[in-house]
Amino acid sequence: MNFEEKTLNKTTVYSGRILNLRKDEVLLPDGKTGTREIIEHSGGSAVLCEEDGKILMVKQFRYAYGEELWEIPAGKVNKGEDPLKTAFRELEEEGGVKAEKMELMFNMYPSPGYTSEIIRIYRATGLKKTRQNLDEDEFLSASWIEKPRLKEMIDKGEVKDGKTLVALLAVL
Amino acid sequence: MNFEEKTLNKTTVYSGRILNLRKDEVLLPDGKTGTREIIEHSGGSAVLCEEDGKILMVKQFRYAYGEELWEIPAGKVNKGEDPLKTAFRELEEEGGVKAEKMELMFNMYPSPGYTSEIIRIYRATGLKKTRQNLDEDEFLSASWIEKPRLKEMIDKGEVKDGKTLVALLAVL
Repeated sequence: MNFEEKTLNKTTVYSGRILNLRKDEVLLPDGKTGTREIIEHSGGSAVLCEEDGKILMVKQFRYAYGEELWEIPAGKVNKGEDPLKTAFRELEEEGGVKAEKMELMFNMYPSPGYTSEIIRIYRATGLKKTRQNLDEDEFLSASWIEKPRLKEMIDKGEVKDGKTLVALLAVL
Repeated sequence: MNFEEKTLNKTTVYSGRILNLRKDEVLLPDGKTGTREIIEHSGGSAVLCEEDGKILMVKQFRYAYGEELWEIPAGKVNKGEDPLKTAFRELEEEGGVKAEKMELMFNMYPSPGYTSEIIRIYRATGLKKTRQNLDEDEFLSASWIEKPRLKEMIDKGEVKDGKTLVALLAVL
């Protein structure tokens, strides 16, 4: 069966700093037309960084939820940037860690009903501690957390971020 | 440390069918102001449904990516609806399965930098097969897939949807 939806027309209704919003008219598989509201986002890179049984985590206030979340180091891919470069950069900026190597673990689609963002999840190896170097409007704290403690945090529902759950569940 | 960002003003720039977009001015922890672009979404419910070593999966064309994705059955929470009710409904509509019980496994925040959506992931038990009953603009096929095959699909990068990765990695 072919379930493809074909674009009839694309309309950008908002162009912003970190995202654009489109409202497209599409041709559905049954020949009817429909609309699709789509967020355009340049993507994210996230890094699983493990040493001596501990994983590097950051705690960050997330305005969308009004709460602080535990996440692995991550950031937005700049326009035209190689996501691998983003991963090295964010690990150093947020976590204060330089890595020699990044291996791709997952290409994750966070919410495919309306966003076209792709989050790449990497595993970093060959680690060397440097120092945190945050963006001007970025406020977060980094900690190395033991794996059994992380398992407990997941079981208690204290880890909510999608990319972080995927990365941790893959190694715990 | 308190990293909270306080709302100075909220502006809705788009009100749509499945999402709204706000552009808020916020007070940052260092006393400066910033803007936050936030998607408002009523949330989703997803269901892990396992029987005889097989897991119920749906394959669905996702316009945002222009590709078919493997996902667990899931859907949007209607305004004011109990997410638990959404889970029962979507499992029956998309998967053709009636469940006796749903147990909450995760509250997942898919992309906390810009969306306020919460995806609840449930595990269904007490299963009884009925028949698929899709929404008018919904086109997808459901299959029961063996767990070792799913593990292989994940290893090959064939499972990309975030909620599905979280649910599967928790049980595989």
